Amino acid sequence: MFAPAYLDWNATTPLDPVVREAMLPWLEMRYGNASSRHEYGRQARAAIDEARAKVAAAVGAHQTEVIFTSGGSEANNLFIKGAASVQKPGTVAVSAIEHPCVREPARQLRRSGWTLREIAVDGEGRIDADDWRAVLAARPALVSVMAANNETGVLQDIAALAREARSSGAWFHSDAVQALGKVGLDFRALGVHAMTLSAHKIGGPLGAGALVVDKRVELAPLIAGGGQERGLRSGTENVAAIVGFGVACERAVSRRDGEAVRLAALRDRVEAALPAWGAKVFSAGAARLPNTSFFAVEGIDGETLVGKLDRAGFACASGSACSSADPEPSHALLAMGVSPELARGALRVSLGRDTTAEEVERFVATFGRIVGELKNLAAIAV
Amino acid sequence: MFAPAYLDWNATTPLDPVVREAMLPWLEMRYGNASSRHEYGRQARAAIDEARAKVAAAVGAHQTEVIFTSGGSEANNLFIKGAASVQKPGTVAVSAIEHPCVREPARQLRRSGWTLREIAVDGEGRIDADDWRAVLAARPALVSVMAANNETGVLQDIAALAREARSSGAWFHSDAVQALGKVGLDFRALGVHAMTLSAHKIGGPLGAGALVVDKRVELAPLIAGGGQERGLRSGTENVAAIVGFGVACERAVSRRDGEAVRLAALRDRVEAALPAWGAKVFSAGAARLPNTSFFAVEGIDGETLVGKLDRAGFACASGSACSSADPEPSHALLAMGVSPELARGALRVSLGRDTTAEEVERFVATFGRIVGELKNLAAIAV
Ligand SMILES: Cc1ncc(COP(=O)(O)O)c(C=O)c1O
Ligand SMILES: Cc1ncc(COP(=O)(O)O)c(C=O)c1O
Repeated sequence: MFAPAYLDWNATTPLDPVVREAMLPWLEMRYGNASSRHEYGRQARAAIDEARAKVAAAVGAHQTEVIFTSGGSEANNLFIKGAASVQKPGTVAVSAIEHPCVREPARQLRRSGWTLREIAVDGEGRIDADDWRAVLAARPALVSVMAANNETGVLQDIAALAREARSSGAWFHSDAVQALGKVGLDFRALGVHAMTLSAHKIGGPLGAGALVVDKRVELAPLIAGGGQERGLRSGTENVAAIVGFGVACERAVSRRDGEAVRLAALRDRVEAALPAWGAKVFSAGAARLPNTSFFAVEGIDGETLVGKLDRAGFACASGSACSSADPEPSHALLAMGVSPELARGALRVSLGRDTTAEEVERFVATFGRIVGELKNLAAIAV
Repeated sequence: MFAPAYLDWNATTPLDPVVREAMLPWLEMRYGNASSRHEYGRQARAAIDEARAKVAAAVGAHQTEVIFTSGGSEANNLFIKGAASVQKPGTVAVSAIEHPCVREPARQLRRSGWTLREIAVDGEGRIDADDWRAVLAARPALVSVMAANNETGVLQDIAALAREARSSGAWFHSDAVQALGKVGLDFRALGVHAMTLSAHKIGGPLGAGALVVDKRVELAPLIAGGGQERGLRSGTENVAAIVGFGVACERAVSRRDGEAVRLAALRDRVEAALPAWGAKVFSAGAARLPNTSFFAVEGIDGETLVGKLDRAGFACASGSACSSADPEPSHALLAMGVSPELARGALRVSLGRDTTAEEVERFVATFGRIVGELKNLAAIAV
C-alpha cells in the first residue's frame, strides 16, 4: 500500500499502537453499559474511573474535574453554551483566532441576547495587550482564549490571561486541544476555570475528549438525559475511546519533553529551507508549538500546493482541516493582519511521533521543486 | 474468564465480530481527518459516505438525511434543542415514558420560555388516545414519541401519531433507538420529521448514532464549529465508529426477521414460567419488541433480584440502565399507573443475537430458585 508521508498531525493523529492494545478488549470480550449493576457494567465503570484518573493526572487536575465528551468540539460547546445558559445574558469574549468550535457557539449565544466581543491579536498572533485591557473593562461574563493555535501554533500566556480575567469577574476557559502533549499543561497552575482536551490529537482515538472544569463553575448540560458525568454529559459512555484517551494522555505526557526537542529540530530544518523559496513563516517571532510550521510563498496558492504535495506523497494542510470545506483564507491570519492574498497561500506542516528526519528532508526537496515549477509557470504566464 | 449470561441487550450489545473487522483498519493503518484534502482525508471521507448510505438504506431514508452524532442521547438533544432554538417559544409535547435524553432536554426548554406537556399513556404503556387529542388541540410546535420503549418494549403506532401531529402543524420526532434492528423501521413510511438511532444497541460500537431528519426541518446545531454534517454537527468525524455503525445497520436489518421470531420464542419461554412465581408481566397486552420482557413479583425488590442474579451469573437490569444511578422506580411504570411498590420490583430481561435457549432455561430455573428463597425469607420475617 502506498503510504504518503503524514505531515498533518494537528488535524488528527494515527492511533498509538499501545493505545490500540488497551482499547481492543473493549471492542471484544469486554462490553457493558457502565450504568448497569452487574459484572459487565462494573468492569466498564472501573475502566472509565481509571481513565479519568489518567487524564486528570496528565493535566494536574482532580479526577472529579474531568467531564468526558465525544471530543474537543463538544467540550468547547459545552463550556460556552453550558455556562451561558445558567446566567443572565452578558458579554462573551473570545479571541479572534479561536477554532470555529469556540467561535460558532459564541455567535449562537447572540440569539439569546448575548453580546459577542472578539479579542484582537497582534501581528504574531498573540493576544493584543491593549485590546485585552479594553475587553476586560467591558466586564465580560465568559472569556475563552486558546492555549495553542492549531494553524500557527502560537502559544498564549494563559496563566496571566486567566488571572486577569478572574479578577475582573469572568469565567475563563481555554481550548487546550493543540497544547496537550506538546507543551506543559497544568490546570491548577494555569488557574483557568475550564479547559478543553481531545484524544485524537495526541495519539488517542476519535470519539473522546474532555472538559476539565472547576467545580465552582455552574454549567447546564449540552447533552441532557441519563445523568452520566455528574449530570453534565449524558449518553452511554464510550468505554473503549475513554480507555484509549487515558492511555494516550499517559504516553503523551511521558514522551512530551523528548518529542518537543526532536520535533522542534525537524521543524527548524523545514523553516531553514524556506527563505530560499521566498516563503514567509507566520508567527515566527512568537512562542510556538514545537511541531508546527505555517508559511506561505507570495503568489502561490495554498490549495494548489496541498494538491501537488499530495500527489507527490506528502499529506499537509492549507489551513485548519476542520474548516477546510470553507474556501476562505485562514481567519487567524486575517486577524493577524496578513493580506488575503498571502493568507491564501498558506501551507501548514505539523509533525508528530512517527515523523522522521528522512521524511522532512524529502519534504524540503519536494516543496522546493514544486515551488520552483509553480514560479516558472507564473513567469511564463506573465 | 467467568462470563455471566448477558441478558441486558437493551442497555448495550457486544460488538458484532463482523462490525469489528470493518472497524479495525480505521484503528490501524487508516486514519486521517475526513476534512483534510489529501489521500488520508479522502479515504476517511469515502468510508463515511459509504456508511451513511448503509444507515440510510436500513431505515428507508436518503443519505443526505442522515446526520451522524456521538450516539442516541446527542441525537435526541439535537432535535429537541435544535428545533426549539430556531422557533419562538411554544409547547413541546413528549410522551410520559420517554427516555431521559428526550425528557431532560424538553425540560431544559422551559428556561427559554417553552411549555412542556407530557402525553399520558394507558395501563399498557401506549399513548392514551384521549390525552393525545387534547395535546394536539393545544397545537404543540414539537412532539416526540418513542417508537419502542427501552423498558417495557411497547411499540407505538408512530405512523398514525406522526400523521396527526403533522396535520396539527407540529414537527414530529421519534426516538427509534430500541426499535432499530428489532422491528421494521421506514423513515418515509412512518412520515416522521426526524428519528433517532444509536449504533451500540444493534451490535455496533459506542460512539455513533444518528438523527435522520427531513431537510425541510430547520435545526440549529447543538455542537457548532467546523461545519461537518451539513453544519448540523461539528467535530472531527469518528470514522471507525461511523464505519461500524454502517455495517451494524446492514447486519441488523438482514437478520431482523429471523431473529425476531427466534427471540420472541425465547422471551415467551421466560414469560411462560413467570405466573408460577406470581410475577406480573408489564405491557403484556400491547404490541412489544420481540426481545424484551419487563416484570415484577409483588413484595420482591428489583435491585435485590439484579444483585442475586448477578452473583448467580446472569446480567439483567432493574430498569433503564441509563438512569439506574437513580433509585426511583421506573417512571414509565408509574406513568402506566403501576403502584410504586410493584414498580420497585421490576426486572428487565432483554435478549439478543448471542442469547441461547440453554441460557434462557438456566435463567428460568435460577430466577425461580431466587424468588423462592426470597419468599421464604419474607415468610419467616413475618
Ligand atoms: C484548537 C482546536 N480546538 C478544537 C478542535 C476540535 O476538536 P475535535 O476534533 O476533537 O472536535 C480542534 C481540532 O479539530 C482544534 O485544533
Ligand atoms: C430509548 C432510548 N433512547 C435513547 C438512548 C440513548 O442512547 P445512547 O446510549 O446512544 O446515548 C437509549 C439508551 O440508552 C434508549 O434506550
